Amino acid sequence: MPNWKLTLAYDGTGFHGWQVQPGHLTIQGELAAAIERVTGESVLPQGSGRTDAGVHALAQVASFELAAPIPPSNLHRALNRALPSSIRVLSAEHAQPDFHARHSVLAKTYEYRIFRGEICPPWLARYVYALNWPLEVEKMQLAAALVTGEHDFTSFAAADPDLSTRQSGPAAPPNNVRTIYSSSWTEEESLLIYTVRGNGFLHHMVRNLIGTFIDAGREHIAPEDVQTILERRSRPAAGPTAPARGLFLYSVEY
Amino acid sequence: MPNWKLTLAYDGTGFHGWQVQPGHLTIQGELAAAIERVTGESVLPQGSGRTDAGVHALAQVASFELAAPIPPSNLHRALNRALPSSIRVLSAEHAQPDFHARHSVLAKTYEYRIFRGEICPPWLARYVYALNWPLEVEKMQLAAALVTGEHDFTSFAAADPDLSTRQSGPAAPPNNVRTIYSSSWTEEESLLIYTVRGNGFLHHMVRNLIGTFIDAGREHIAPEDVQTILERRSRPAAGPTAPARGLFLYSVEY
Repeated sequence: MPNWKLTLAYDGTGFHGWQVQPGHLTIQGELAAAIERVTGESVLPQGSGRTDAGVHALAQVASFELAAPIPPSNLHRALNRALPSSIRVLSAEHAQPDFHARHSVLAKTYEYRIFRGEICPPWLARYVYALNWPLEVEKMQLAAALVTGEHDFTSFAAADPDLSTRQSGPAAPPNNVRTIYSSSWTEEESLLIYTVRGNGFLHHMVRNLIGTFIDAGREHIAPEDVQTILERRSRPAAGPTAPARGLFLYSVEY
Repeated sequence: MPNWKLTLAYDGTGFHGWQVQPGHLTIQGELAAAIERVTGESVLPQGSGRTDAGVHALAQVASFELAAPIPPSNLHRALNRALPSSIRVLSAEHAQPDFHARHSVLAKTYEYRIFRGEICPPWLARYVYALNWPLEVEKMQLAAALVTGEHDFTSFAAADPDLSTRQSGPAAPPNNVRTIYSSSWTEEESLLIYTVRGNGFLHHMVRNLIGTFIDAGREHIAPEDVQTILERRSRPAAGPTAPARGLFLYSVEY
């Protein structure tokens, strides 16, 4: 059966995350329903990883097989007609038979957006963490740099053991060790944007990193403490989980 | 009692418009509740005019009197803490005793945004009318220019007689005659933006103008037909009502 690769953008605000859950609106569920409406086939599209409730995607990737032969541009247009405007198919293409949106991941990039202005415009509120405290951005930058390289990120993983490794891909070893290729903050007008690229991410990992970097920016911890927090391998050692609404899955590399 | 003037921005998506309605979430209702929570006083803030369900505001103005003496910056901050993030107070200031947000209006400006790209990003979908048809922008421009000046806008007013004049202010005569000072389209990347400034607007007037200008852009009517449509003074003569989500109350002048 022809294998498909879709690239999707979505506003996660109104959804209970990526993964189908009975009785809840989810991205995977809406996409499966749209595929069935368009092709008559019942498939469960596999994502590059789950995103939590409220987390957005600029380019999530999903794969699935379809029996029906259908030109990519037709599937693309038909899915966008069938989907709500909060989910858009950016591209639809045929993929190699062994392509799998999750298993084939080489690297992923996430972005987290903090709004620093005094009054957050209503149209930004769903897509940023509005934080009006004084923040020492240089200290957040130092803290962010310390997580690059290969580390055991247990301290930054959701405490729920069932969930802690659920965002991992086979590109990462079957434990809490991940490799972060880049991790840094940039300032753009009223936004403070964190960009992190790595071979895999644990559940809540980016949001827990953000909470910890904010602790460094507020000078509740020293930037160097990130080193100790990593070594402790204990969730309570790190900072709080930052809100989902500032987080975007930015891109997935294969 | 001290008179107050607030300037507000809001995302109208989740609201049943400006005006309080029992059992519905409205901007005026949320603002009244926030004022009461902050000051203990029960007042009904008066807006510069009603906005319909789904219509947004970059700078709506509201006025009300409060007995309690409270510094403007304190009221400003406290209201933003009490309001949902979809409504923001941009400024709070003392006003002259005779200032009234609706009665004192000299001119208002509205903006309407059409998204012209092939795939509308999910974070824009609530704030634009995504329209992928070919449009002759020059013809829309010609049509838009024809409504400047003083005209009877009955053809562009909601057919409901009870509602047709509800957006008027005393700056405009008590009928369907309004003066439009400027009316034009601009192109900005994937957006086609209509800006209209006038002494008053009838209910649905901007959205009905947009529906008619789109008819001109699709060449279903000639731009010059706008003249005839105005002369007919009959709602069915004009085009359809464009969706609320593309409309922003841009500014109010006093």
